[in-house]
Amino acid sequence: MQLDIHFLGTGGSWPAVHRNVSSIAIKRGSEVLLFDCGEGTQRQLQRSALSYMQISKIFISHFHGDHFLGLPGFFQTIQLNERKDPLYVFGPRGIKKLVGQLLDLGYFAPSYKIHVEEVDDGDVLTFDGYCIKALAVCHNVPCLAYCLEEDSRPGKFHKKKALSLGIPEGPLFNKLQKGLTVEVQGKKIAPSAVMGKPRPGRKITITGDTRPCDGLIEFAGKSDVLIHDSTFDSSIQQKANEYGHSTARQAAEIAQKAGVEKLFLVHISPRYKDGKLLEEDAKKVFEESYVTHDFMVAEVRYRN
Amino acid sequence: MQLDIHFLGTGGSWPAVHRNVSSIAIKRGSEVLLFDCGEGTQRQLQRSALSYMQISKIFISHFHGDHFLGLPGFFQTIQLNERKDPLYVFGPRGIKKLVGQLLDLGYFAPSYKIHVEEVDDGDVLTFDGYCIKALAVCHNVPCLAYCLEEDSRPGKFHKKKALSLGIPEGPLFNKLQKGLTVEVQGKKIAPSAVMGKPRPGRKITITGDTRPCDGLIEFAGKSDVLIHDSTFDSSIQQKANEYGHSTARQAAEIAQKAGVEKLFLVHISPRYKDGKLLEEDAKKVFEESYVTHDFMVAEVRYRN
Repeated sequence: MQLDIHFLGTGGSWPAVHRNVSSIAIKRGSEVLLFDCGEGTQRQLQRSALSYMQISKIFISHFHGDHFLGLPGFFQTIQLNERKDPLYVFGPRGIKKLVGQLLDLGYFAPSYKIHVEEVDDGDVLTFDGYCIKALAVCHNVPCLAYCLEEDSRPGKFHKKKALSLGIPEGPLFNKLQKGLTVEVQGKKIAPSAVMGKPRPGRKITITGDTRPCDGLIEFAGKSDVLIHDSTFDSSIQQKANEYGHSTARQAAEIAQKAGVEKLFLVHISPRYKDGKLLEEDAKKVFEESYVTHDFMVAEVRYRN
Repeated sequence: MQLDIHFLGTGGSWPAVHRNVSSIAIKRGSEVLLFDCGEGTQRQLQRSALSYMQISKIFISHFHGDHFLGLPGFFQTIQLNERKDPLYVFGPRGIKKLVGQLLDLGYFAPSYKIHVEEVDDGDVLTFDGYCIKALAVCHNVPCLAYCLEEDSRPGKFHKKKALSLGIPEGPLFNKLQKGLTVEVQGKKIAPSAVMGKPRPGRKITITGDTRPCDGLIEFAGKSDVLIHDSTFDSSIQQKANEYGHSTARQAAEIAQKAGVEKLFLVHISPRYKDGKLLEEDAKKVFEESYVTHDFMVAEVRYRN
């Protein structure tokens, strides 16, 4: 199944011409999940390859404006475009109140259903084919990191072995691949006889806004992609500490300790025009570090 | 004094790639007034020649999201950029409640002062050198048109006449131009002896969202610029009626009846890519009709 990350807003604090505020879309098959929704996200979506009508679930990390002020316009626009499907909104405690407030602004009432669910540190939300885990991170207000973990996939199918056991090529192969026991010449053959061990699905971790947070090392452990707060460069680490953010180098240290495949740097301060400085800063610690830019798309492939 | 209109968002209903939602800035001298503030207006301001720190007063026409959802992000960003000057927000009844709601979202409290004032149909707000008048127009929710009218300027100074009265060129000319009586060789000379009649200042009318509204004919009378709702073209007038909007042709009819100098068409539906159709539609009735586009700047000159 195709799995792509669309970086819609890679800037922090306030929108700049070159970067909009926080929003990341993950497209998995035909479903699109949105992580944070800063002001202007609906317009970023229009500029992307995605349709805002595809979005089924929104996960809000915390209640600073640059992470949620795009919600009310998004709610209204999908209504004007005749949304019928329900929309699910998840966030830290307080998200129910916040969405209630946003739906009470001016003249607007949705005619589609908006389900809002409060998420706590340690929660695991289970969906079809994947789960979303939440971790409380270290910002100056309550903030959640989210991790998308796919269910494990069946192991590899050993065709030679199957043939050697007398199983004819065809529908029985398919049954075994689906995990069903088959019968050949009066003999029962379990899938384990011809299948390798289940292979892990893909894993993407998005930190939200955070200082370097020890809990992330395990939480993001072995992620295919870690998307980490990288508001500043190391030369102004004091500023990062003060505002509850990380430097690019600190993000890279977490990536290295967590043993991830790739690190994407986001929430870039408007002071940086291209972010090269941040990428260099991170690469000193962790080679597979990349600064993101708006509308960048990263495909996440199966490792095996 | 320089007077420019900056069209920041010329689209209606929801943002499109080619047009953002409603916002118009008027720069008069060093002051910037903002009329409506749809989502993403702060970023449009960044792309314009204006600074959002220059904005002193915001006038909201009505409480549909495409006209006000840019306010909370704007409030927050000017704070992050260390705004000290107070900000004035005007709007129809309910604006105090609305701004209160917007300031209660997430973790935010402004450290600069936000003054909010409710405006009624017929109100005249007097400022230094100009006033803002309000008119209730014909939308499907309460909506105000605003008109900026400059104070009249002194009449022309007739130099020849002054010299013939024995007034020496120099400081006395200046006094007369300022409206003061002077004494020359024991004779009192009033400004009216050497000055023409006061000349009217400039006038800009912004309709907000409205069906063709008779009240606008007098209210916008003799405006230098009329900025009128022009959501649809004449072929779908029924849609315009239904949603409380005007067609380009209807806007032109109001412009003609009001005897304005120029008509600018705004609140263009996202269905139109360039708006040429609307301009043609309006020009059939009123030649000085122009469709606007985001970041267009129109200078308003004195007529005499």
